[in-house]
Amino acid sequence: MNRRMVLYMVGQMVKVEAALMVLPLLISVLYHNDCVYSFLISIAIALVFGFLLTIVFKPSNHIIYAKEGFVIVALSWLTLSLIGALPFTISGEIPNYIDAFFETVSGFTTTGASIVNDVEKLSRGILFWRSFTHWVGGMGVLVFIMAIIPTTTDRSMHILKAEVPGPMVGKLVPRLKDTAKILYLIYIAMTLLEFTLLLCGGMPWFDSAIHSFGTAGTGGFSLKNSSLAGYNPYLQWVITIFMLLFSLNFNLYYLLILRKFRSVFKSGEMWCFFGVYACAVVLVTANVYPLYHNASTALRQAAFQSASIISTTGFSTTDFNLWPGLSKAILLLLMFIGGCAGSTAGGLKSARIVLIVKIIKRELKRMLHPRSVENIRLEGKKVDNLTLNGVTTYFALYAVCFVLVFFVLSFEDFSIETNISATAACFNNIGPGLGAVGPASNYFAYSAISKIALSLAMLLGRLEIYPILISLTPSTWAKK
Amino acid sequence: MNRRMVLYMVGQMVKVEAALMVLPLLISVLYHNDCVYSFLISIAIALVFGFLLTIVFKPSNHIIYAKEGFVIVALSWLTLSLIGALPFTISGEIPNYIDAFFETVSGFTTTGASIVNDVEKLSRGILFWRSFTHWVGGMGVLVFIMAIIPTTTDRSMHILKAEVPGPMVGKLVPRLKDTAKILYLIYIAMTLLEFTLLLCGGMPWFDSAIHSFGTAGTGGFSLKNSSLAGYNPYLQWVITIFMLLFSLNFNLYYLLILRKFRSVFKSGEMWCFFGVYACAVVLVTANVYPLYHNASTALRQAAFQSASIISTTGFSTTDFNLWPGLSKAILLLLMFIGGCAGSTAGGLKSARIVLIVKIIKRELKRMLHPRSVENIRLEGKKVDNLTLNGVTTYFALYAVCFVLVFFVLSFEDFSIETNISATAACFNNIGPGLGAVGPASNYFAYSAISKIALSLAMLLGRLEIYPILISLTPSTWAKK
Repeated sequence: MNRRMVLYMVGQMVKVEAALMVLPLLISVLYHNDCVYSFLISIAIALVFGFLLTIVFKPSNHIIYAKEGFVIVALSWLTLSLIGALPFTISGEIPNYIDAFFETVSGFTTTGASIVNDVEKLSRGILFWRSFTHWVGGMGVLVFIMAIIPTTTDRSMHILKAEVPGPMVGKLVPRLKDTAKILYLIYIAMTLLEFTLLLCGGMPWFDSAIHSFGTAGTGGFSLKNSSLAGYNPYLQWVITIFMLLFSLNFNLYYLLILRKFRSVFKSGEMWCFFGVYACAVVLVTANVYPLYHNASTALRQAAFQSASIISTTGFSTTDFNLWPGLSKAILLLLMFIGGCAGSTAGGLKSARIVLIVKIIKRELKRMLHPRSVENIRLEGKKVDNLTLNGVTTYFALYAVCFVLVFFVLSFEDFSIETNISATAACFNNIGPGLGAVGPASNYFAYSAISKIALSLAMLLGRLEIYPILISLTPSTWAKK
Repeated sequence: MNRRMVLYMVGQMVKVEAALMVLPLLISVLYHNDCVYSFLISIAIALVFGFLLTIVFKPSNHIIYAKEGFVIVALSWLTLSLIGALPFTISGEIPNYIDAFFETVSGFTTTGASIVNDVEKLSRGILFWRSFTHWVGGMGVLVFIMAIIPTTTDRSMHILKAEVPGPMVGKLVPRLKDTAKILYLIYIAMTLLEFTLLLCGGMPWFDSAIHSFGTAGTGGFSLKNSSLAGYNPYLQWVITIFMLLFSLNFNLYYLLILRKFRSVFKSGEMWCFFGVYACAVVLVTANVYPLYHNASTALRQAAFQSASIISTTGFSTTDFNLWPGLSKAILLLLMFIGGCAGSTAGGLKSARIVLIVKIIKRELKRMLHPRSVENIRLEGKKVDNLTLNGVTTYFALYAVCFVLVFFVLSFEDFSIETNISATAACFNNIGPGLGAVGPASNYFAYSAISKIALSLAMLLGRLEIYPILISLTPSTWAKK
């Protein structure tokens, strides 16, 4: 493996993180927060560490193969979280470093699972950093680097593949760098649009920024203990719609810009996503109606919570843990489906669900007519067998990882409902689960070991397992 | 489809069922039970129905293709249960026919999930029939027919494939009929051995028979409300060992008879099975030790319950629903693994777990070296790609079916723990679950719709989904 190149890229990424921390630094200066120094120290540490890596490991050979791509992504995300946790601990607002690490991983992976008991006590600078990690992590840090750093070669396709979720990653335009730029421009434009709509609805600018970051990255950190319960219905509806929009494949927006409306309309993945969502909303609305005695409130609550879970955001406008069993079961199932491939959402991804159903149908045909050959198509393109096998294998691997994390949590004295939903909520990058980790509660009560396991689960979920698994394989690290 | 042949085979099977009911009839005569007449009436109905089918649909064409094989198996098992439920309802011991159907499906599929609140009130004849269905269902009814009916041609390989669980079904000897005979002889010999060992331990002969049937089929119906809690440790250990023995691939016993000890010793599936079991026993013993303050009791309880769940039998010697969270979580995970392929046990099967781990390892290698080609071997034989894809696809299909059954149960007001474990316990043919369906309780409280969904889950689990799914596809029924 090209170790120098790996460490060099990690160094570059740490420098970018130092730059990103300037924004919360300015916010804390603006609000005269005590956390100013914690950001200054963290930026200094990041810069020293970043320059050390890039100078010491300056590579002669810039080639990145699949292996290097996976390891760069895994190591970058780990380092990003280790350094990103510093301001929380140095400022003393999250004194325990493991807690701060959990919170930062949760931020970057756009999970939104928190260990903070009273969010409203956090300073503005810290709150801003916490939510800004969602926005950065949503689209991917390395994709961002590719968009801005001029030296990156087109070899870095392997990095894009490893960081962008979904069974198939394609370039929008021939040059990878331009693809990254287009994706980020769409991302910024949509975030600004949501920010403006929230401002228009009377939400203060700071709250609007925090919630726009949380929605865009499908993260879910809020600045209120009751999440979005205290805001008016208009604001809740705006966020509902944007949670859904950020769960769609960003390619669709690019197609819209190109005025290829027919292709957008034909997207099987999108219809599957909306179909599942619509069924969930209808069932949950009917199920929770007796709690609200008001159809529009029931619909708004059902639409918000279902969008929040299927988009893997994790905001809440009510404590859905108190809802009847059917609604809770539906939310639990939505956790696994997640958004569309190529979005900022987590979960298995709608595209994989569509492909799995098609694979099962083909298998049924094959059992009856062993010699039949049938092609499977997604979004109008033929999907090759290697990708199809990859989807079912990913599914099995996903289940194996899920079981392992659940097993670690089982050593704690929580109910099976709590532990299963905690695993599902972290692994699928949602945030709140059911039982003791419901929206009215948080992950503080878990032990350090469980918090580390859950942090790993969030990284596994965000990076879709392989980068982490390949980095943990000793043979990966062998010198050629 | 060759509909005549399908219905003819179902008719044959119903006639065999009539013959099988003579045994409980004799028992009820022996004990002067009131249920004598219910068996006489049921036998009469079965005979009339069976002869009607075989006479009316006598086929000119005896050819059975894959499609016919699947449909014969699915329809036979459904009819078997519908008719097998008659004695329960006619005798009035389980007055509700849906309850009786649930109990019969649970018997034939060797699940052992019960809706009977007081088992000890049932008459001996009914108890015998209830447990005898385990023994018949364990090895497979159609395999039995193949072993005894002379006219069956070797074309019926498709039936064997559809009825015998596991990812690969092979013949032990060139002639299918002889394979079926060998399997049944091993089955009978092992059942008799267990029966004798139980008798020697002081268990009454009737109890020994009931428990031998329950163990051999890995079913789990007992004749006591406390299952095996009231019997002495020797008897509990005998049953522990036989639950494990009946979960091994029966091919291994044939290899033992042939004195191919080396092949037995090299069975990867067997070692995986014992490895998982040993880990579970160690962890559970340590976890429940504080409850018993006695190492040997803790070990016996852990060994029994773990064997009961991994073998998908479902007997119990204690209410493990009261055990600490870790033990409950371990038992829940064991539910999914199940026994070995080619045994009477349910679950995903150890062979599939082994193959899935190997497939994941190969996928990791492929991601790093896209052109690498690696063969996967099981029990020394190369497994072809079609079978491998079949394993991962089965896994996905299994998850989809699991979710659907769980979803139906979610309409009931039970906890998520109860509904998940009920689905797992029925789908994997175990019997008792956790929460409200724990060993000290039963499935009586579920609604009729849920009972039907759970019955379907048991059939899906026992027949490994495809036969049912193919029978439910309208195009299957089209005339050529």
